[in-house]
Amino acid sequence: MKKLLIKNIGILATPLGSSARGGEAQGAVQMTKNAWVLAEDGVIAQVGEGTPPAAADAQVLDAGGNLVTPGLVDAHTHLIFGGWRQNELGLKLHGKSYLEIQNAGGGIQSTTNATRLASVEELARKAERALDEMMSFGTTTCEAKSGYGLAAEHELKALQVIRDLDRRHPMDIAATFMGAHLVPAEYKERREEYVRLVCEEMLPLVREQGIAKFCDVFCEADTFTVEESRRILEAGKRYGLTPKIHADEIEAIGGSQLAGEVGAISAEHLIVCPQEGIDSMAKGGTVACLLPATSFYLGADFAPAKQFQQAGVPVAMATDFNPGSCPCLNIQLVINLGCLKYRFTPEEVLTAVTLNAAAAIGMADKVGTVEPGKQADLVLWDAPDLDYICYRMGSNLVRQVIKKGSPV
Amino acid sequence: MKKLLIKNIGILATPLGSSARGGEAQGAVQMTKNAWVLAEDGVIAQVGEGTPPAAADAQVLDAGGNLVTPGLVDAHTHLIFGGWRQNELGLKLHGKSYLEIQNAGGGIQSTTNATRLASVEELARKAERALDEMMSFGTTTCEAKSGYGLAAEHELKALQVIRDLDRRHPMDIAATFMGAHLVPAEYKERREEYVRLVCEEMLPLVREQGIAKFCDVFCEADTFTVEESRRILEAGKRYGLTPKIHADEIEAIGGSQLAGEVGAISAEHLIVCPQEGIDSMAKGGTVACLLPATSFYLGADFAPAKQFQQAGVPVAMATDFNPGSCPCLNIQLVINLGCLKYRFTPEEVLTAVTLNAAAAIGMADKVGTVEPGKQADLVLWDAPDLDYICYRMGSNLVRQVIKKGSPV
Repeated sequence: MKKLLIKNIGILATPLGSSARGGEAQGAVQMTKNAWVLAEDGVIAQVGEGTPPAAADAQVLDAGGNLVTPGLVDAHTHLIFGGWRQNELGLKLHGKSYLEIQNAGGGIQSTTNATRLASVEELARKAERALDEMMSFGTTTCEAKSGYGLAAEHELKALQVIRDLDRRHPMDIAATFMGAHLVPAEYKERREEYVRLVCEEMLPLVREQGIAKFCDVFCEADTFTVEESRRILEAGKRYGLTPKIHADEIEAIGGSQLAGEVGAISAEHLIVCPQEGIDSMAKGGTVACLLPATSFYLGADFAPAKQFQQAGVPVAMATDFNPGSCPCLNIQLVINLGCLKYRFTPEEVLTAVTLNAAAAIGMADKVGTVEPGKQADLVLWDAPDLDYICYRMGSNLVRQVIKKGSPV
Repeated sequence: MKKLLIKNIGILATPLGSSARGGEAQGAVQMTKNAWVLAEDGVIAQVGEGTPPAAADAQVLDAGGNLVTPGLVDAHTHLIFGGWRQNELGLKLHGKSYLEIQNAGGGIQSTTNATRLASVEELARKAERALDEMMSFGTTTCEAKSGYGLAAEHELKALQVIRDLDRRHPMDIAATFMGAHLVPAEYKERREEYVRLVCEEMLPLVREQGIAKFCDVFCEADTFTVEESRRILEAGKRYGLTPKIHADEIEAIGGSQLAGEVGAISAEHLIVCPQEGIDSMAKGGTVACLLPATSFYLGADFAPAKQFQQAGVPVAMATDFNPGSCPCLNIQLVINLGCLKYRFTPEEVLTAVTLNAAAAIGMADKVGTVEPGKQADLVLWDAPDLDYICYRMGSNLVRQVIKKGSPV
């Protein structure tokens, strides 16, 4: 049996339980001073305070009086894509219009083109590097979407890359099929056909290969209507995929209401979410997965995080890592933004990037807290307390990541 | 002779010259494809494109087709302080008022107390760690202020720490005396005495020890009036110190006008700078040293960067690293903010954190560009072009820092 003892933990900060926490419960973080954690075969066996047990056969890690938290969970990433789009930033700042940029081959379609051209190996190499870096910032579990292929072959290629990486990289990765990310250029005049393609061709193949857990759709004025989104998510359910939905990022066309109605496990963005949407999500048990780094990067408004909180809707926060609206994979910056922009307390923020994020990807029984029986995913910080990791900005404060009981 | 050849540079991006650039010139960055740089004894000897010279006796660094820029210059930091103030963030977010936090021993006075209690060794150890990290993000030269001692003994202690670090750390550090950071608690009812203390006791000692280049003052409604600031800066000049000034951060009481009148080398913050201030700075040859990470961290407005630009006032950008309003030493985040919040082009941003920042601390003859005769301070990026380092956010994109011709 492989044992790891983490001793001399100044403060062990963790939410508790195996389901998402909303309302006041989101801020209920247990703080244990002078703590220790014993992991056996990758699972947390014991958590205690004071003198740790004698464990002569265990690898011992001295936390040096620092903070330890659960491994962080990034519940929303568009991990798999070809190319980057840095040239668009320069063009924009030099005064080029969105249309000029699109005409110069820019925009999301350019990422689709690059993703289609990329081989499995190329996509894997690039995503692997991103995973390494995400883990260096404290993320031990993440979600990853397809959605830049927008054709059966290329959507499946992206999901295969995710499956392979989940197998060979220390990161746990929950796969989301997002064929309905946008209507690709070649279907612009035949959108009904594209919706049928997603429902009748892609979804059966995804099911057949068993390579996704969730089905996500971008429900927005310029992409998929509420009724199209409903069809796609209901079809996904028939093929065994749990619904997720990008809703109310720009216009409140009804995506958050739909989230609750179809029983989506999470709804994403929610910048302009109306009260009816919040109510529907509360009723449907949907986690609000907020993406503050995207708001920041786009100069957009920030989602009404406190309102979800007040309505008892559990809030998760994630990076939204993607090559267009958020080329940022650093979840520590999301932690800062949670305090600075959502005015969440450090405890609420911690819950949002651990337990609630795990719940948003259906993994709260396994990760997201430091408790016996959970997977031994932890972050040992170069920080004396939880406040500190919310307060400092721009420095990587991780001292050691522990994944499945092993220092990474 | 110690030689370093950096070859296979995809793009060498650098402003040119030895004085600050305002107006359109701020965006005039030279981009050389397929370039090389030869350094001899810590100084740039040759810069070229195409096939590099045979240099058998040189250490060779292959840039792998990536971007190379001048080493970055952080022209405004409060590097020397005791303690941190993370608990205040938590208190604020839990609803405590500013007064309650002050009464609980918080606020800037708590940093003064901690700084006074700290030994030279403690302050040096802490600052050295910050310097290491700043350098890992690409900063090769910085400014550092005293200003948390607020008593002759402790202001001199801080400046001694800066001098010692400048000698033994690879970072070049320009020292600023800022005894007039605020009126310390014990002088609250005797502010005139404190101003005299700064002018008649501290400044002579600073001169005697020759341990500062600049004299800075916080000119703001709650700290030092325009007339007090003028007295202090004029006194500083008599003792050989070049004026700098924190101006117009919260209220426009006349600090930026004063900057131009006393010939300040730079004015800092400038969030609410009026047109008369901009005009005065243009006339006085003062660099606008903007601190966007502080605006961001405080949720404040952003300085009118484009207006300085239009008036021909050179703009520099810096971190403002300090334990209260900006616990961030990562200049790459400042680069992001320059694009996202000031709408500066990547070229303008680069000039703001290299040549203009060097000019803001009187070092533009020595650092800030990649040209023969300048010190061989360079950053080799993990990035194909300049747009990329402005576009990506939250990742450390430095591949290798070169300081005085040596890889760090």
